[in-house]
Amino acid sequence: MSDRLAFADLTPGRVFELGTVTVDRDEMVAFARRFDPQPFHLDEQVAAGSVFGGLAASGWFTAGLWMRAYVDGVLARADGLGSPGGDEISWPAPVFAGDELRASMEVLAARRSRTRPELGLVTLRGSMHRDDVLVFSSRFTGMFRATS
Amino acid sequence: MSDRLAFADLTPGRVFELGTVTVDRDEMVAFARRFDPQPFHLDEQVAAGSVFGGLAASGWFTAGLWMRAYVDGVLARADGLGSPGGDEISWPAPVFAGDELRASMEVLAARRSRTRPELGLVTLRGSMHRDDVLVFSSRFTGMFRATS
Repeated sequence: MSDRLAFADLTPGRVFELGTVTVDRDEMVAFARRFDPQPFHLDEQVAAGSVFGGLAASGWFTAGLWMRAYVDGVLARADGLGSPGGDEISWPAPVFAGDELRASMEVLAARRSRTRPELGLVTLRGSMHRDDVLVFSSRFTGMFRATS
Repeated sequence: MSDRLAFADLTPGRVFELGTVTVDRDEMVAFARRFDPQPFHLDEQVAAGSVFGGLAASGWFTAGLWMRAYVDGVLARADGLGSPGGDEISWPAPVFAGDELRASMEVLAARRSRTRPELGLVTLRGSMHRDDVLVFSSRFTGMFRATS
């Protein structure tokens, strides 16, 4: 994974498998306590009777786990310039402590900025799956240096 | 803020002011180290020469700060049932350590589920501003118990 990625390497259809991460219960709950203290993210008993059927991760924690995998697998070897945002973020299924999640990123589109051709604009989809179940999906724009 | 909020109280156009939060530098950097270790989120020197012009928060950290304000100001006194996601997330301006951010939530639309009328579906916009500068915005669906 030490090969550098240039903007030109981020071609539509290319998929990056970003490895797996196991959801740590203590970290999951600590995250919820700080950023999303809803009862079904904090309390096993309450969560068991909730729509989730068990203690569920905050969706923002799942997003953070995906982001870390994306940084490690792609951004660490590219010239990323941040993101202005995106037009989809979804949590189609709950995530539970101990889940093994598989992260991936697909390039959907890539072009140079019209006004700043040295800026590459990449539309991408980030996904997390537990087995074949999609638990997180987001489509957003990544900005990359596009000098060559 | 102890008044309960029923689904019927979440009427389109209603705005909830969710207070202010000051961005703590140590927490901001610790978050980035764990979830978004890009150089401009971690290293003051690198960040000064980056597009952000200074050490900038991970957008996911800003999202987390907004979520906490939303839980404290709204969800803690409502019967929230989580969120399936949304169709906008944006970070139009960078966030820096020490920034005082003002959180708000606006109800854009609200209806009962056609198939499950006891489920209220609320389209809402979450926003964070530093003075008059919008630094975070997201539009998503919140699910609420709608029994009465």
